[in-house]
Amino acid sequence: MKLYTYFRSSAAYRVRIALNLKGLPYEAVPVHLLRNGGEQRQADYLALNPAGLVPALEDGGAVLTQSLAIIEYLDETHPQPPLLPGDALGRARIRALAQAIACDIHPINNLRVLQYLSRELGASEEQKTAWYRHWVEEGLAAVEAMLAQAPRSGRFCFGDTPTLADICLVPQVFNAQRFKCNTAHIPTVLRIAEACEALEAFRLAAPANQPDAE
Amino acid sequence: MKLYTYFRSSAAYRVRIALNLKGLPYEAVPVHLLRNGGEQRQADYLALNPAGLVPALEDGGAVLTQSLAIIEYLDETHPQPPLLPGDALGRARIRALAQAIACDIHPINNLRVLQYLSRELGASEEQKTAWYRHWVEEGLAAVEAMLAQAPRSGRFCFGDTPTLADICLVPQVFNAQRFKCNTAHIPTVLRIAEACEALEAFRLAAPANQPDAE
Repeated sequence: MKLYTYFRSSAAYRVRIALNLKGLPYEAVPVHLLRNGGEQRQADYLALNPAGLVPALEDGGAVLTQSLAIIEYLDETHPQPPLLPGDALGRARIRALAQAIACDIHPINNLRVLQYLSRELGASEEQKTAWYRHWVEEGLAAVEAMLAQAPRSGRFCFGDTPTLADICLVPQVFNAQRFKCNTAHIPTVLRIAEACEALEAFRLAAPANQPDAE
Repeated sequence: MKLYTYFRSSAAYRVRIALNLKGLPYEAVPVHLLRNGGEQRQADYLALNPAGLVPALEDGGAVLTQSLAIIEYLDETHPQPPLLPGDALGRARIRALAQAIACDIHPINNLRVLQYLSRELGASEEQKTAWYRHWVEEGLAAVEAMLAQAPRSGRFCFGDTPTLADICLVPQVFNAQRFKCNTAHIPTVLRIAEACEALEAFRLAAPANQPDAE
């Protein structure tokens, strides 16, 4: 398998964790999001993924896009260890936690959105940082409330093995720390992220450990 | 089942379509996103869904959140007709199309984001409209490219029966038309949305046909 990736992309980071948890070897093809006006917007990459976003995964002849769709595909084609364990309600909970991050936080703080804020709306660096922190802090507060309420949270977001929810959580916590967001209100989130980071699958997927890390 | 919904919410609209396609009756509980400072931010609703977003679905004693997680749950618990048909690659394609809308377009144009633009960044109505159109037009162009390339697009996004992808497409096209976005570049998207709107399950789920429509 070939993963089109950028070391700091949250969405690529998620897929790297999933591949590692499944023990699947892959070739990393770096796509630099800032160099040359964004390599993800160049014709050869757009032919693979018309959305012009990373990651994309090549498996056999097929090209898959969208990190959560890719991870569900990996889970269907390589069921062990399961990333969506439990019954239908359990899986709904795991997916809801994943989407509370992948839909409600991450897209609003994506590079192209931050670029639009400065280029089109004249936002200052300070305003962009406030924007970034606002959505992370509000979004992770919702995740914290979901986790703290639930009898099914364990060592990880859902029980005692890592799932799709943890796969989304860790890159988002990494971003929160990178942008010095307030995290005093999310002890459960931090406790779970730490438990994940003790696992090699998560550590090896971290931005600093990528071939294209800067 | 009880659906906490707002007539104009895209995410609630998706779940309404799914419930109709499955033939599942439900009680609609309106949550007004603009009245009283946003009913979704009041304590009784936050106790159900700490994220303060619609929709939420009550089924038996359980409360489910996040529209895509809810729809996958409905599909697992009521398999007919399947909303994620096909093999693993097919499902990955359906989910990728759904997420190209639910992650890459919709969250950036959500009410709370538009409110932040005006309240915190002083964006004018004109700037907010330009913002809205930008993400819809760019995002649906990517969806168009995905659909136009693929041998598996049929009458609907994936073959000839409606799937999770169509469920996400129709509310997004509704928004595009409501905000008078440019749609000249997305003929396949429009053709499929029209095919969907010929079905009663989609029509009955439309904002204008909700009990809380204004």
